[in-house]
Parts: sequence; C-alpha cells; structure tokens
Amino acid sequence: MSTQTLSPTTRSTLRRGARRARTDRAELYAALDTALVCHLGLVVDGAPVVLPTVFGRDGDTLYLHGSTGAASLRAAAAGAPVCVTVTHVDGVVYARSVFHHSMNYRSAVVHGRARLVTDADERMAGLRAVTEHVAPGSWEHARLPTRKELAATAVLALDLAEASLKVRTGPPVDDDEDVEAGGRWAGVVPLSSTFGTPQPCALLPPGSTTPTHVVTRCRTDHDRP
Amino acid sequence: MSTQTLSPTTRSTLRRGARRARTDRAELYAALDTALVCHLGLVVDGAPVVLPTVFGRDGDTLYLHGSTGAASLRAAAAGAPVCVTVTHVDGVVYARSVFHHSMNYRSAVVHGRARLVTDADERMAGLRAVTEHVAPGSWEHARLPTRKELAATAVLALDLAEASLKVRTGPPVDDDEDVEAGGRWAGVVPLSSTFGTPQPCALLPPGSTTPTHVVTRCRTDHDRP
Repeated sequence: MSTQTLSPTTRSTLRRGARRARTDRAELYAALDTALVCHLGLVVDGAPVVLPTVFGRDGDTLYLHGSTGAASLRAAAAGAPVCVTVTHVDGVVYARSVFHHSMNYRSAVVHGRARLVTDADERMAGLRAVTEHVAPGSWEHARLPTRKELAATAVLALDLAEASLKVRTGPPVDDDEDVEAGGRWAGVVPLSSTFGTPQPCALLPPGSTTPTHVVTRCRTDHDRP
Repeated sequence: MSTQTLSPTTRSTLRRGARRARTDRAELYAALDTALVCHLGLVVDGAPVVLPTVFGRDGDTLYLHGSTGAASLRAAAAGAPVCVTVTHVDGVVYARSVFHHSMNYRSAVVHGRARLVTDADERMAGLRAVTEHVAPGSWEHARLPTRKELAATAVLALDLAEASLKVRTGPPVDDDEDVEAGGRWAGVVPLSSTFGTPQPCALLPPGSTTPTHVVTRCRTDHDRP
C-alpha cells in the first residue's frame, strides 16, 4: 500500500461522517480504477449539470474525453470548476430501525478545474488511458484514431490534488435498545457487479474467435458501477 | 406502457446524441426505480458538488433525505437549483476502432429546485418512499422513526417535470471500411449487478431466520448501480 496520503483542502475535507473518510491515496486509486464511469458535475447558467462519462487515470491525472461539440466538455475545457464523483455501491445495510438503514459504498470526489490537453502526445496518452480503463487491451487491438477523429475529440485533464474518499463497510449500527428488543432482522445484502458472456458483433466473419483481452475481462469479478 | 411522454425544456432537451433520447415516462420511471443511488449535483460557492445519495419516487415526485446538518442538503432545501442523475451501465461496447468504443447505458437526468417538505404526513410518505426504494419491506418490518430521529432528518421533494432519459443499447456502430477490413473483434461485454447472500448481523439472537422481504430481494436480478 502506498503511504502517500490525500491532502485535503477545506472543500475536500469531509464534514459529515468524517469517520468514513479515507486518506490513503492507494485506496483512492483503487476506487477510481475499478469503476467504469464517473459523474461529471459542472455549473451551466448558474445551475448544476451532472452527466455520466467514462474516464481514465494516469498517475495523479484523471483524463476525460468527449466530442468537441459537447457543451459540457466546452464549459469544462474553458476552465470552469468541475466535480468528478465515482461511486461503488457495495451493499444495502438493513438495520433494526428505519433511521439506521444505510448503504455500504466507496465514493471518490474530485474537485478542480480541468485543463484542455493540447499537446499531441499527451492527447494520445489521455485517450489511451480512457480506452484502456474501459476496455483493457483495446488500444493495442483496435484501429487507432485518425487525424479527423482526433480533431473531433476534446481531451481534458483533471489533477487529483483535491480529492476525497468516503467508505462505509460492515454491519448495521443499531441503537442498543433496538438490539436488545429483538424481533427485527438486521444485516447486509451485498451487491456486486459482474461482466457477462461477450456478445460478438453480427458483422464479424463466421468463425471469429473472441480475443484474449476480451475473454479475460469477462472473468474479472470487479465492482464496476 | 404509459403513453405519457416527457415534456422537455431547453435544458432537458438532449443536444448531443439526440437519437438516444427516450420520451416515454414509463422508461424514465423504470430507470429510476431500478437504481439504488442517484448523484445529486449542487452549486456551492460557485463550484459544482456531486454526491451519491439514496432516493425514492412517488408518482412524479423524487424524494431525497439526509441529516439536517448536511451542508448539501441545506443548500438544496433553500431552493438552490439541483440536478439529480441516475445511471445504469449495461455493457462495454468494443468497436473495431478506438473512436467508436462506447458504453451501453441508461441515464436519467432531472433538473429543478427541491422543496423542503414540512408537512408531517408528506415527510413520512417521503421517508417511506426512500426506505422502500432501498430496502423494500423495511418500512413494515423495522422500527419507525422517533420524534427525535424525525427532527434530525430533512426530507426534500423534487418534481420530475424537467427530466430526460438517454439510452444506448445494441452492438457497436463501426465505419464500413473497418468492418470490411476485418481482423479486429467487435461486440458487447454486458455488465450486470446482482444481490448476494444476506449477511445477518452478528448481534441477532442465535437461530434467527432471514425474513421473506430480504430473501426475496436477494433473488431479484436487477441492474442496480
């Protein structure tokens, strides 16, 4: 485990449920790396907009991409503040009281201003990070972007400097009176996310085999919300 | 299926990927009802904040709840604009080109201003909706909130008037040249989310059985990100 810790600012210091805050950077990386999508928050005309999008990570940089025509990407690229949140739901916590019902989860929240990546090499590295995050092995296997495709794609970088991770695990925490009273069930119903059998494209030539990087993917048993 | 359709405003009219827009209200309800958490977006000090939270639905009203001490809830309760987004990730779409890689997903986005619920009956109805959404059967089985617990809980209502649903399903859509060229795999790797075996609380009396509403839950095979 990395001994590097998260360096919170006022904004990324958890006020509610501070006991659930994690400060190990390796745990943050793990929560990010095992999620398929993040939720990107922006302010548009004074109101919040939250959109799901794929992402990739390279060290302490989060990469996002999208069409150069997308209003949300343009706003983020112009340096507006953003919030990127990644959430794993690990289980439903049934308590003896309605009040103590809860969820087991891991949630990473990153605040910052995104940077529009203009350097050609970093743009390719960012796109590679996003592609490999979502579909490991595809960067080597699939056709790489053409000049025209690259021109239509915006790549954004967000520093992981201002990030927090909140985690709840374990059984319900009930009031003593409710535990003693008995008669009501309490426990956790775990939730997990798994890949199914690959569905080959109908346009593949007959007899095509599914490549190893796809087969391997389907055997992973990650939580991938 | 309901014939009622979503009535988009400028903000909830999808500009990017308009072909993925769905206008059937029943589809919106289904996407909301089968998700465990939403991502609530707010503007705090001019910057976006996106937090995962549970919710419930009663007709065209979305209910949220939280501690009266939570800054995010207080901001929302004060009538600040909010955005609530619910996303199901249904699969990874592997294309023959990196550029056409995609995700299969369903994503509901609701814009509006939340209303702090003050009527005692509606507060209970809202809490019931949230509880039954996350843990069906718990409202009947668990101990209901005390006066003190109710005093510590804020209940917010958000109208589903300004909502949109975006859906991608099906195989990759590749360029003809890439399909003809052959040699690269394409297809979909589906993703699903399932409940596991209930983990009873260690403080339950020996021989306690798991009640039907919990057992039933674990047999559902929903997508629940």
